Amino acid sequence: MAMEHIQAEELAKEFKEHSVAEFFKKNKQMLGLYGKIRTMTTIVHEYVTNSLDACEESNILPNIEVQIKELGNEYYEIIVTDNGPGLTEKTVGKAFGQLLAGTKFHRMIQMRGQQGIGASGGTMLSQMTTGKAVKVLTGTEKGKAISLEITIDPKKNVPKITNMQTVERKFQGTKVQAKFKDVIYRDSSTGPLEYLRRTAIANPHARIKFKGPKGQKALFKRTIKIIPKKAKEMKPHPHGVTVDELISMSKYTDAKKVASFLKNDFDRTGSTSIEKIEKKVKFDLNKDPKQLSWQESEEIIKAFKKIDFIAPNTDGLSPIGENRIKKSLNAIVAPEFVHTITRKPKVYAGGFPFQIEVGIAYGGNAGKKADGEGRSLEIMRFANRAPLLFDAGSGAISKAVQSVEWKRYGVRDLDSIPLTVFVNFISAHVPYMGAGKQAIADEDEIMEELRLSLMDCGRKTATYIKRKLREKERLMQQDMFYKYIPEIARALKNITGEKEEFLTTKLEKLVKEKLGLEKLQENLKQEETEPLENEVIEEVETSGEKEDKEKNTKENK
Amino acid sequence: MAMEHIQAEELAKEFKEHSVAEFFKKNKQMLGLYGKIRTMTTIVHEYVTNSLDACEESNILPNIEVQIKELGNEYYEIIVTDNGPGLTEKTVGKAFGQLLAGTKFHRMIQMRGQQGIGASGGTMLSQMTTGKAVKVLTGTEKGKAISLEITIDPKKNVPKITNMQTVERKFQGTKVQAKFKDVIYRDSSTGPLEYLRRTAIANPHARIKFKGPKGQKALFKRTIKIIPKKAKEMKPHPHGVTVDELISMSKYTDAKKVASFLKNDFDRTGSTSIEKIEKKVKFDLNKDPKQLSWQESEEIIKAFKKIDFIAPNTDGLSPIGENRIKKSLNAIVAPEFVHTITRKPKVYAGGFPFQIEVGIAYGGNAGKKADGEGRSLEIMRFANRAPLLFDAGSGAISKAVQSVEWKRYGVRDLDSIPLTVFVNFISAHVPYMGAGKQAIADEDEIMEELRLSLMDCGRKTATYIKRKLREKERLMQQDMFYKYIPEIARALKNITGEKEEFLTTKLEKLVKEKLGLEKLQENLKQEETEPLENEVIEEVETSGEKEDKEKNTKENK
Repeated sequence: MAMEHIQAEELAKEFKEHSVAEFFKKNKQMLGLYGKIRTMTTIVHEYVTNSLDACEESNILPNIEVQIKELGNEYYEIIVTDNGPGLTEKTVGKAFGQLLAGTKFHRMIQMRGQQGIGASGGTMLSQMTTGKAVKVLTGTEKGKAISLEITIDPKKNVPKITNMQTVERKFQGTKVQAKFKDVIYRDSSTGPLEYLRRTAIANPHARIKFKGPKGQKALFKRTIKIIPKKAKEMKPHPHGVTVDELISMSKYTDAKKVASFLKNDFDRTGSTSIEKIEKKVKFDLNKDPKQLSWQESEEIIKAFKKIDFIAPNTDGLSPIGENRIKKSLNAIVAPEFVHTITRKPKVYAGGFPFQIEVGIAYGGNAGKKADGEGRSLEIMRFANRAPLLFDAGSGAISKAVQSVEWKRYGVRDLDSIPLTVFVNFISAHVPYMGAGKQAIADEDEIMEELRLSLMDCGRKTATYIKRKLREKERLMQQDMFYKYIPEIARALKNITGEKEEFLTTKLEKLVKEKLGLEKLQENLKQEETEPLENEVIEEVETSGEKEDKEKNTKENK
Repeated sequence: MAMEHIQAEELAKEFKEHSVAEFFKKNKQMLGLYGKIRTMTTIVHEYVTNSLDACEESNILPNIEVQIKELGNEYYEIIVTDNGPGLTEKTVGKAFGQLLAGTKFHRMIQMRGQQGIGASGGTMLSQMTTGKAVKVLTGTEKGKAISLEITIDPKKNVPKITNMQTVERKFQGTKVQAKFKDVIYRDSSTGPLEYLRRTAIANPHARIKFKGPKGQKALFKRTIKIIPKKAKEMKPHPHGVTVDELISMSKYTDAKKVASFLKNDFDRTGSTSIEKIEKKVKFDLNKDPKQLSWQESEEIIKAFKKIDFIAPNTDGLSPIGENRIKKSLNAIVAPEFVHTITRKPKVYAGGFPFQIEVGIAYGGNAGKKADGEGRSLEIMRFANRAPLLFDAGSGAISKAVQSVEWKRYGVRDLDSIPLTVFVNFISAHVPYMGAGKQAIADEDEIMEELRLSLMDCGRKTATYIKRKLREKERLMQQDMFYKYIPEIARALKNITGEKEEFLTTKLEKLVKEKLGLEKLQENLKQEETEPLENEVIEEVETSGEKEDKEKNTKENK
C-alpha cells in the first residue's frame, strides 16, 4: 500500500492568516450570538450596556428607548436610543465597525462592557444576515449631530462609513438602528423585555422604555434620580496579580524605577512594603520597569505573597444600595413584602474585592408563573447590575440559592411559592465560568459570602413568610369549617330546639376564636401599611400605557 | 445636584484598539482554557488534533506520543511528538506563534481543527503562566530538521522566534514541548488519558502512546493499518448557503461570470439549474461575480430555495466504519459484546450532509464505574472523531440517548448496567451549540437520525443483553436455592431417613432443571466464541506495560 506522502512544502501553500472579524463571523456563538431568541437578547444587551456605561461615565441620568420592529419572517429591526454623551466623528466608526476597539479594555474598573466587541458584533451580524449597514445617529453636547451608515470590512476588521451627514436638529446621545434575520422575538423569560425589566430593577436610576414588535409597551420609570457613584479605576492588589499581568503593567507604567512602579501602580503598597520587597528580591529596585525579566517579575510576585498587605481597597465597588433595590423590586415586581441587604465588601482569591447584594421579595407578583397554577421561585442573577439570563442552572448564585435550607425560613416548597430572589455580584473582576459569561465561578469565598447573604436575608423575611403561610392555612381551615356550619346548625336545632341563626352565629364565633384568625389578620394589616421608605416611589406602568410624550430631557440639571 | 457632564471628546481619548492575542489573553475561556483540569485536556487536544490532521493530510499513519511531566505544584510540561509531515521554517512560527493563522480556515472540509488557534493558544498560555517560550523540533521528509523557541508578541499577534538551530540527526514530524502553571493533571473522566483513550477508539489507524506525571503508561496500538479516506473539500449545496456566504465565496472565485461561479463552486448545480436560476433573477448571469450586490445575491439564494436540487454529495464525509469501531471498542473497552452501525449519510437544514456512527458495547469493562459498586451507562460522544468530553449533559447526542426507551432493549436501569454507547457525528459543518464547542445542536433531522441509529443498534444488542440479564437473575436464584439445600436436606433426612448426600444431589438436580440454567450457559458460551471479524486485533496494553522500544518508523511504506 504505497501511498505518496504530501510534503510539508506543499501544505505550507495553504497557510493563511485571517482577521478577527472573519474569526468571529465563523464563531459568532462566542459572542452569545446563537439561538434565535438568545441572539436578539444579546444584541439588545450589548446596545443597552453601552448606553448605560456611556451615560454613567458622563454623569447623565440614562433615558433609554428600545424598539423592536418585525419586518418579516424571523426578520427584525432593533432600535436603541440613549441620551448619553454621544460619539465623535473619530470614535463612532470604531465603536460600531471595528471589533476589539473601545475604551474599556485596558482598565481595571467595574463596568458592564469590557471587550469593545458588542456593538461591532451587532454590525457584523446585521451585515451577515441582511447585507445592510447599521444606521447611527449621534450627537455630543457641544458639537452638531451626525448620521451615518456603518459596515465592517471583514478581511481587515476596519469600519466602512457611508452617507455621513450633519443633522440640523439638536440631538444628544446615540441612536442605533440595525436589522437582523434568523432571529426571533419572544416575551419569554430569556427575551428582551425580561432582560430590560431586570436591567431596570438593577438600575433604578435609569428610565427604560420598550416597544415590542406586537405593539407591546413597557415603561420602567426611574425610582431614584441619583447617578450611581462612578466606579473608580482600581489598582490591582499585590495578592491578586499574576507574573504575566505584572509584566504587562510594567510596559504601560509611567514610573522610571521598579520601586516607584510597585508603589504607584498597586493597591496597598507603601514604603514599608517596598522595603520588604527590596530585601526579598535579588535585583536592584532602581531598575527601569520596562526592563523587568520574567525571572525578576516572578521574584516580585513571590515577595508579594510573603507580605501581609492590608486587604484590598474596596472604594471601586459600586453597589446599588439596599433602599434602591427595595424600591425597584417594589415598583417593578410588586410583591407583598421585600427585604434587601447590601453586604460589606469581601475579597476572593486573596486579591479581588467583591460585594454581594441580595433581595427577597415575597407574595403579590413575586416569583414566576409555575408550570401548573400558582407561582414558583424566581432567581434573578446580576453581575455588576447586568442581568444574567442564560445558563441559569450553573454558577455560584444558583448553587448558593439551592444550597440554602429554605425550610428554616418558612419556605416549604420552592416550586410553589411566590418568591423572587435577587442577587447582584459586584466586582471589577467577575470570575465567569465558561465562555458564555453567564455564570459566576463558585470560588470558596464567593460561595460562603453568597450563602451568608442569602441566609441573612432569609432570616429577615422568615417571620413574615411563616406568618403569611400560617394565615393561609387557617383561612383554609376556616373555610372548611364555615362550609359545614349550616349543616351542623340544622342538626343542632333539631336536638336543642334553638334557632338556626343563633346557632350559626355561635358556631362562627367558636371557629374564629379557636383559630385566632381575626387577631392575626389585624396584625398583618398593620404591618403591611407601614411605610416602606420615606421616599416616594414613582409609578411604573409595565404595559398598555399611553404613548409617553415625555422628551428625553436631562433630569439632572 | 449639578454634576458636570464628561464630554464625548474627553471620552474619545480613551479609545484604543487591541490585538486578537490580547483579546484571547483576557478571554482564554473562549478557547476552552479554563478550569485547571479542563485546561490541560484542552491543550493535549489541540496538539493531538493538529498531529492527526497533519498526518492524514500527508498520508502518514500517525504515531503520536504524549508525555506529561509534573514540574511543581500545579506546574506541568506537556510534550507531544508526531511523525507527521513537519513544518517548514516559514510556517512553524505561524503555526505556534500567531493566532488565527493556519491552513484550515477557509476550507469546507471535514477536519478536526479549524481555527488556526489551538497550538498558538497553547503558546500564549505557556507564556502567560510561566513566561517561557514553547520549544519546537520539526523536520520534513526532504529537508533538515530544525529546533527553535517560539513566543507570541501579544500587542501585534506575531511570532517571536529564538534559538533556531539546524538539527543534525534525522527527524521527521513535529515535537512540541510547553510548560504551564495553574493546571492540574487527573486520571479522571475529563482528563488527558481518557481523552486519548477515546481518541484512540475513534482513530483506530493511530498509534498513541501516553506517559503521565506519576509514571502512568498507556499504549493504544493501531488496530488497522489503513489511513482513513482523505476528507474531500466539499462544495456547498445550494440549500445550505446563506447570502453572506455566497458573497464571501464570490470574492474568492476564479470564475469570470456569475453563471460559471454558480456552476463550478456549488454542489449539484448543473446547466439545467443555472437556466432555471436565470429565469428567476432580474440581472444578467454574465456579470462578474465580484460585482454581485447583496440584492442580487439574495435573488440567487431565493432562486436556490425554489429549485429541487439533488441531495448534497456525501463523498466528503469520512466515517470510521462499522468493523473498525468494533475492533477499537473490543480492543480498548474490552466488553463481552459489541454491535456497531455506520448509517447512510443524511442531510440537515436542507443543505448540510452528515452521518452517524453508533456502537453499543455491553458487559466486561463496558460502562463507567458507578457511584456505588458495579458499572453504569457511559456515553462517548465524538464530532469528526474528536472526543467531546465536556458539557456532557447538553446537546443532541446526550438528549437522543436519554430519549431512547432502553427498556425495550433489555436495559432496565441505566445507572446499573455495564453499557458504553459510542456516537460519532460526522460533518464538514458541525452545528455546535454554545461557545464551548462541546455539544451538538438538536436540529430536527439530527435528532431523528440519532434516535433511529441508537434504536437500530439497540435492537441488535437487545437479544444478547436480555439473555445475559436473564442468566444473571437465574444465577442469583440458583445461588439462593443452593444456599438452603443443605438445610432442607438435613430436614428431609429426619423425615425420610434417606442419606443427606443423596438428598443434596437430588435437590441440586431439581434446581438446575427447574431453572434451565445449564442449557442457557451453553448457548451463551457458543455465541461468545464466534469470531467477531476475520482480521486480527492487535493487543492493547493500557497500563503497566514495559517501556515500548519501538521507534516511530513509518508503517505504510
